[in-house]
This record gives sequence, C-alpha cells and structure tokens, in this order.
Amino acid sequence: MINPKSTNMNEVVYFNRSLIAKKEACISPDDRGFNFADGVYEVVKFYRGKAFRYDDHIERLKRSLREIRISLEDFDQFELVFQELLERNGLTGQEAGIYLQITRGSHTRIHRFPENIQPTVYASAFPFSTKQEQIENGIKVITADDIRWLRCDIKSIALLPNVLFAQKAAENNAEETVFIRNGVVTEATHSNVIGVKDGVLLTHPDSNLILPGITKKVVMEICRSNGIRVIEVGIQASKLANMDEMMIIGTGSEVTPVVDIDGIRISDGKPGPVTRFIQEKFFEQTYLSH
Amino acid sequence: MINPKSTNMNEVVYFNRSLIAKKEACISPDDRGFNFADGVYEVVKFYRGKAFRYDDHIERLKRSLREIRISLEDFDQFELVFQELLERNGLTGQEAGIYLQITRGSHTRIHRFPENIQPTVYASAFPFSTKQEQIENGIKVITADDIRWLRCDIKSIALLPNVLFAQKAAENNAEETVFIRNGVVTEATHSNVIGVKDGVLLTHPDSNLILPGITKKVVMEICRSNGIRVIEVGIQASKLANMDEMMIIGTGSEVTPVVDIDGIRISDGKPGPVTRFIQEKFFEQTYLSH
Repeated sequence: MINPKSTNMNEVVYFNRSLIAKKEACISPDDRGFNFADGVYEVVKFYRGKAFRYDDHIERLKRSLREIRISLEDFDQFELVFQELLERNGLTGQEAGIYLQITRGSHTRIHRFPENIQPTVYASAFPFSTKQEQIENGIKVITADDIRWLRCDIKSIALLPNVLFAQKAAENNAEETVFIRNGVVTEATHSNVIGVKDGVLLTHPDSNLILPGITKKVVMEICRSNGIRVIEVGIQASKLANMDEMMIIGTGSEVTPVVDIDGIRISDGKPGPVTRFIQEKFFEQTYLSH
Repeated sequence: MINPKSTNMNEVVYFNRSLIAKKEACISPDDRGFNFADGVYEVVKFYRGKAFRYDDHIERLKRSLREIRISLEDFDQFELVFQELLERNGLTGQEAGIYLQITRGSHTRIHRFPENIQPTVYASAFPFSTKQEQIENGIKVITADDIRWLRCDIKSIALLPNVLFAQKAAENNAEETVFIRNGVVTEATHSNVIGVKDGVLLTHPDSNLILPGITKKVVMEICRSNGIRVIEVGIQASKLANMDEMMIIGTGSEVTPVVDIDGIRISDGKPGPVTRFIQEKFFEQTYLSH
C-alpha cells in the first residue's frame, strides 16, 4: 500500500538501509516508535550542502541511543546517506535539513525491550530556510509549567507535551512556549532559552531537565571567544520581565530574538546588541562559511 | 511494500476504516504517532468474545482524545469493528484483547497541530490470556522514582518512560516497577497499585499523576458492595514494607497479588485474604459472566 499522505510524490527517503521513494516507506503498526515513542531523533542543518556541527549531532544521537539502550552500529554510513538524500531531493544548493529517527524496531507489543529486533532507521531531507523576519524582528513567546518527564536530556520522540505547548503558543500568536519548572526557566518546546542581563548571558545548565543544545554549545563558544560572560543558571521566572535581552536558540531557530514574553515587552521590544553580536558570529559560522 | 515483521501472515487488522491484512498496514513515516507520540490508545479485554467494561474504555478514550484535542467521530463503529476483528482472527471463543491506537494523523513534521488532517485509526486483535501462575502465587515488583510527565491521566502513546522501567523490572526478575513520586506510590508502568492495611484498601486517588484505571474502578465497586473500606490516598513509600497485602490491577494484570517489593516480602509472601476475595469477585464479573 502506498503512503497517501506524501505530498511530493518523487521524494526519496532512507529507510532501513535503502534509499526508496517516500510513498513506499512503510512503518509497521508494530513499530515501537509508533506504539511506545521508543526511539530518538536528530535534525541536522545543511548550509549549501554542508552539514553544520555534524559530529556534535552524531555524538548526541549516540548518547540518546545509549541512554535508552538501543544498539546501533555503522554511524559512518550516515554522512554519505545524508548527502545522497540531499542530492536525490535536489537540496544541495540551499539550506536544508535532515531528519533522522531511530526506534527500537518492530515487535508484537510488550513494554520491556524485545529480544532480537533490529532498530528502525528512517531519514528524510527537507528544505529548511532561516525565518528571516523572525531573526530580524524577534518573536513573541509565552510561558507554561514544564510538565515534561525528567529526562529531557534524551532527544526522544516522546514529544506529546512539546506538541501540546507548541500548539498553545500558536493559539496565543506566539512562536514558542518557554517552560518554567520550580520557578526557573528550563528551555522551550523545541529550542533552548537564553537571557541577557547587564551584559551577562544566562542559560540553564545542561542537566536532566533540558536538551544539551548544539546551537547552545556554539553560542557558549562564541561568548567564550569574545569575552562575554556566561552564567549557566536557570533564570528565575519572576525576573524574566527584567531581562535586557532574550533569545531562543536551536538548529531550527538558529539565534532568534525574543521581544515579548507573556505580552510583556522585553526592553524596548527590539533585539538588543548582545543578540545582534551573537547572531553575527553565528552567521559567520553557518551561511558565510559554507 | 509489505510489513516484513508480521509474524502471523494471515492476521487481519483495522486501519483507517478498512479491515486489511496486517502485512499491508502501512503507517506513514510522517504519522504523528511515529514522530511525536501524538496519540492515545486503549486495550479492551474480551472474555469469550464479549468485551469487559466496553463503555468505560470508550469513555476513557474519548476523554484522552479530548485532552489532547484530536477530533474523532463515529465511536459507534468500534463495537462492530472489534467483533469483526476477533472473528476474522479466530479469537471469539477465548480470552482476547483489542489494541486500539488513534493518532492525530500524518503530516509534514511541525510541532503544532497541523490543519486539515485526518486521525490515524489502527486496531488489532490478539490472544490475551490470564497469567494463571502470577494470579495464583503473586509477583515481585521493584520501585523507582516516577520521572514521567504530569499528565499520566491521559492514556497517551508517549510511553518511553514506561518502557524503560518495565525493562528495569524485567532485569531485576520482577514483573512490574511501582513508581514513587514525592515519597508516595502513584501507579506502576502499566497497572494501578493497591495496598491493604488492617483490612482497609489504599490506592492513589485519580489525578493527573495516574491513569484512571478501569479495573481500579471495578475493584472500588467490589469494595463498596462488600463493605471493604477504601481510602484513596497515595501509600507512603516508607510504609510499603508494612502493608498486609499488595496488588497490581489493570486490564492485562487483572488482579495480581504482589508478594515481594524491592526484595522485601509482603506479609508471609503469600497472597492475602482481601486479595483473594477481590480476585474471586473480579472473576465472577469476567470469566464467570461471559
């Protein structure tokens, strides 16, 4: 049976060691990704055909797999597969993304790990352009209680809470929901969060409560190289309105200024100088280097 | 492409309004159940072809769907579909289960709810017999911190934590992991938990922290009808070892005695009289009435 939902009938995807037409990619209803969210994923961004921080993504993927104990070998294949996916889908000359999802595999439904199953490996390529207007003018965000599980450091596909709160943002004319746990900012539904106060950059330390963002790592490096002080601490929710600047950062968001949080304007409602500086340095490593 | 993992090549499943061979059931890699755990499920048990507490399961399903805002109509179809599934798979004369999963549908990956998509509806039938030995002699369980999200009342497919802790139980020669949150027992990875102390039955009240179990509802009814006092309160983890009796209950577990928790024997290590009484009344409503 072909997948009737594929919009681009010529799209090519990677599925269990083969490049095939997406319309022929058939996930079993017994796949543990479908029944249990028993899997992990990564999104890698390509600038003009070249991956950004490829090794960091693969390292994080390996860590996620290790944490939920899915055994996968042959990570070396992915670099070639991703390039092939971009080429076969005509995405080498532009900004593009690779979505890679790995699940424990397919088996009659039992909670514990089944024996002798092979992981399901799926990857697709897609156009993934910078949201220029948001990068330029900033976005609105809302806040909500962080009700997620306590292993947000695993990039798992158990994303239902993220979905619900991304939707809540959309319904409030906002682009993201920033999570607050025990009175402090953790991260957002699909990005890390940074505040700036008196020239110091504030962001939640890597822990079980947030995803160790690769863009976050890049931004920390930029700060270190340029004498911007960073304090890795969760921002008090009560002090959000007093931040001089705010950003959400991530593979998709890149470095996006936040100018409004829960309807309260940050500073003068325009992206500030630290944000602009980090954006500039970030773009030097991405658009301008690729 | 056929699904190569189907073990029974003649199995018939329900998929998007049709009964089809399981080997032809093809979940899109863009299904939000596969990418985001954006869906819910139910398992209904059939005793000799007759559903147990069918209406309760459908009501809970409707509630789960409502909570994550998936719109589905035509619930009336399911009763007939389930019967047909049992018949087509030769499961009418025995204990059997129906697994029903509904996801938001299939769409290019975006976190917020996509517009104009149709839910994916999947159901399968399977032999589902009572674990006689466990019902008779009881099981061992372990405890672990409840690290799940704060909407465990939704029967969602975001079950990765449940999977991880079911596996932990298996590796400790136990049948279940009992979750402890803030010092009190919530529930287990796929069952509710009951303790008995001085003839009083103790179990966590329905809240955002546990699934409102249908077997739990049945057991509460049995207690009320038979003068057994129930206190709906989370059992203090520190008092677990002092319980006179313990049980896990659920559609799959039915009423299973717990005789060992974290290596500590409950009472004399044999199922107690309250457990036996509830089992007897439960079996009157299931095996003996169907």
